[in-house]
Amino acid sequence: MEAMRAVVFDAYGTLFDVQDAVAAVCDRRFPGYGKALGELWRRKQLEYTWLCSLMGQYRDFWRLTEDALAYALKALGLNAAPDARRELLEAYRTPPPYPEVSRALEAMVGKTLAILSNGTAEMLRAAVANAGLAGRFAAVISADEARVYKPHPDVYARVLTRLGVAKEDVLFVTANAWDAAGAKQFGFRVCWLNRFGMPFDEGLAVPDRVVERLDQLF
Amino acid sequence: MEAMRAVVFDAYGTLFDVQDAVAAVCDRRFPGYGKALGELWRRKQLEYTWLCSLMGQYRDFWRLTEDALAYALKALGLNAAPDARRELLEAYRTPPPYPEVSRALEAMVGKTLAILSNGTAEMLRAAVANAGLAGRFAAVISADEARVYKPHPDVYARVLTRLGVAKEDVLFVTANAWDAAGAKQFGFRVCWLNRFGMPFDEGLAVPDRVVERLDQLF
Repeated sequence: MEAMRAVVFDAYGTLFDVQDAVAAVCDRRFPGYGKALGELWRRKQLEYTWLCSLMGQYRDFWRLTEDALAYALKALGLNAAPDARRELLEAYRTPPPYPEVSRALEAMVGKTLAILSNGTAEMLRAAVANAGLAGRFAAVISADEARVYKPHPDVYARVLTRLGVAKEDVLFVTANAWDAAGAKQFGFRVCWLNRFGMPFDEGLAVPDRVVERLDQLF
Repeated sequence: MEAMRAVVFDAYGTLFDVQDAVAAVCDRRFPGYGKALGELWRRKQLEYTWLCSLMGQYRDFWRLTEDALAYALKALGLNAAPDARRELLEAYRTPPPYPEVSRALEAMVGKTLAILSNGTAEMLRAAVANAGLAGRFAAVISADEARVYKPHPDVYARVLTRLGVAKEDVLFVTANAWDAAGAKQFGFRVCWLNRFGMPFDEGLAVPDRVVERLDQLF
């Protein structure tokens, strides 16, 4: 792992907290429903990326995030006024970084760092700036460029084009098990960030390494 | 709808009950965990179909059903002996038909009836025979033939090849909202069977009609 030239991070769940932070906003707006709303919203958001990709119908991640929120609210029987909806969506535009992120990135000086995420360029720019991480990354790459979502290989291939590196040069780091499997299948070296002590998915390509926090990486 | 030449049904959730019936088996083996295990199992089973399809890694639905069960048991901290695992899987091989299925199919005499499902040919044969529906269908079509899963268009295209019909001739009936969207996107007339009064998915192609039970179709 030490020798890898480029370290490429997933964004949501990996660098940025879209679990506790989003649940907190949801709970403030809909007391008692924070966890359920946050989880269903995230689950539908991912489902929509996979379904749209399989149907060959690309719509950007901001749109899918709005749609997934609309579905989750309906399914839970919750009514959200426009300002509540905006505040909830804002939690996905500027999610806080996990506490160890800045320190962990500092320890990687000398390596080419990048982000590869389903998020739109605008969402990622906002999240990186909000977290005080502007300038830390050689490239912030959106699945938008491929017009299909992870784990489709075309998304991972954007890293090679944008960074001018070979697959063997890349260590890909993600907290999403399915993303780790997709990146491994594509040919990257992969570290799965298992923040919550979950089992890895069955039958999918297995990552090279597992850590619990980003500062355990190097 | 009356004029459609062929009526093609999804299997799991549409003709066959894989919700209450699977939950009941799960609950007998793991009292108090039936609903949670049944839901997580089904959710991971679907996720694996989408993820494998996007990664270009085909593995048949029986394998994915086994893998999804293994994941769900681990995630819930449950230990299943081999005989318990076999009994749980058997619930997916021979799920009971919904009560109105046989009566509803009888009312469609004169139309070409078929099944299009993610299930393997063996799983579908077992479920159809167990439900006493053998001989009712002109074709039982498995996604296995396309080596990719719904909602990829190649799966829906198998209907045209196998039945020798045009898209415009087909009414596709499914209880899965994402399947209804995929079939509509492909070009079929679609009826969504909304058995549980759920909201339809946001932003996906909208079905032509919604019913609550199959005997409301004609």
